[in-house]
Amino acid sequence: MSEHITEQEREAFYKTVYTRRDVRSEFLPERIPDDVLSRILTAAHHAPSVGFMQPWDFICIKNNKTKQAVKQAFIIANNKAAERLSGERKQQYQALKLEGITESPLNICVTCNRTRTGDFVLGRTTNSDMDLYSTVCAVQTLWLAARAENIGMGWVSILHEEKLKGLLNLPDHVVPVAYLCLGYVSKFHDKPDLERKGWLPRRKVEQHLHNEIWRSNKE
Amino acid sequence: MSEHITEQEREAFYKTVYTRRDVRSEFLPERIPDDVLSRILTAAHHAPSVGFMQPWDFICIKNNKTKQAVKQAFIIANNKAAERLSGERKQQYQALKLEGITESPLNICVTCNRTRTGDFVLGRTTNSDMDLYSTVCAVQTLWLAARAENIGMGWVSILHEEKLKGLLNLPDHVVPVAYLCLGYVSKFHDKPDLERKGWLPRRKVEQHLHNEIWRSNKE
Repeated sequence: MSEHITEQEREAFYKTVYTRRDVRSEFLPERIPDDVLSRILTAAHHAPSVGFMQPWDFICIKNNKTKQAVKQAFIIANNKAAERLSGERKQQYQALKLEGITESPLNICVTCNRTRTGDFVLGRTTNSDMDLYSTVCAVQTLWLAARAENIGMGWVSILHEEKLKGLLNLPDHVVPVAYLCLGYVSKFHDKPDLERKGWLPRRKVEQHLHNEIWRSNKE
Repeated sequence: MSEHITEQEREAFYKTVYTRRDVRSEFLPERIPDDVLSRILTAAHHAPSVGFMQPWDFICIKNNKTKQAVKQAFIIANNKAAERLSGERKQQYQALKLEGITESPLNICVTCNRTRTGDFVLGRTTNSDMDLYSTVCAVQTLWLAARAENIGMGWVSILHEEKLKGLLNLPDHVVPVAYLCLGYVSKFHDKPDLERKGWLPRRKVEQHLHNEIWRSNKE
């Protein structure tokens, strides 16, 4: 394989990036074939990791009982979140669908084994969270790979870590970094749900660019 | 644009994932054109973010004086890291080139503004680090976009946060998540440096897959 990426290949990559969505409402029940899932997880496993630690694991959940228990945990955490809001913003929040745990055919919990490869991890000596960041790199690679397979994915972050650890039998040194819902979809919307529904606007990229040092007028 | 990803497009995406490297030694001095850099940063800006917070900023550094200061900060942090090792492993560590700060034409510090969009961030109510994770999603998207543009990138994690904040004039609420070196390269190696040089082996993806719950025999 030539290492050069052609213009056509580059356009395909960008298409994947720009059509990726955080999917909550459009899941179809159709099962993801094993070979497709294997390609997605193998791509995720080729994410970068600090000190080549490869700290991630992937727990694939199809069992309805587990999904129902996770859904219950979401409801509790989400109700608690809504209590922090009031008035119109609370109503707007409560009207949003924020997960597709039971409708999606596959849930994946991506974890970080914080002790993998031992005490000394090259590159993790000044920031001990670099293993968690590597795991997030795997999550984002998984997300884009799923999109490249025309599979939708949503990240459910409104869950308490200790609850998930209990449900999935995680040992102390293994942290659940992301709880993901995957499946084929009826549609990929052209914009994020939170933008379409007026929760927050898309910011201009220019607002995020600084030359040489931080400029506070960009905030 | 059709939302369907074709097999050919999918192959192009996977080629980008599998040929991405953490580059330290192969940088060429050639400047990255503005339109290319703009495409890379715009792709990164389309990463997913918790509550559509878009917490990231990108500080582009070309100034040699800043690069030299960051390089000095790296040397101090790296010497400190090496002190934790001894014997053959220490020698092996010290022989590795772990950054390309001054050789790469462009450094980018990706930061996380922890207060962006205010007190209540949708989806960050149970895990306050979700904004940092969103920023890492932007870093990994930036990394893959750079690769799609045939540009190499390395993540320098051996730096003290407070030192970087001082050098780049970051306010208290803005955290430097990643310090990146970018440039065209003489070569993309077919395997990660740390694998090629025998620091750690590539693990089999099967060791990372669990069905329904965590299985400790996979560790």
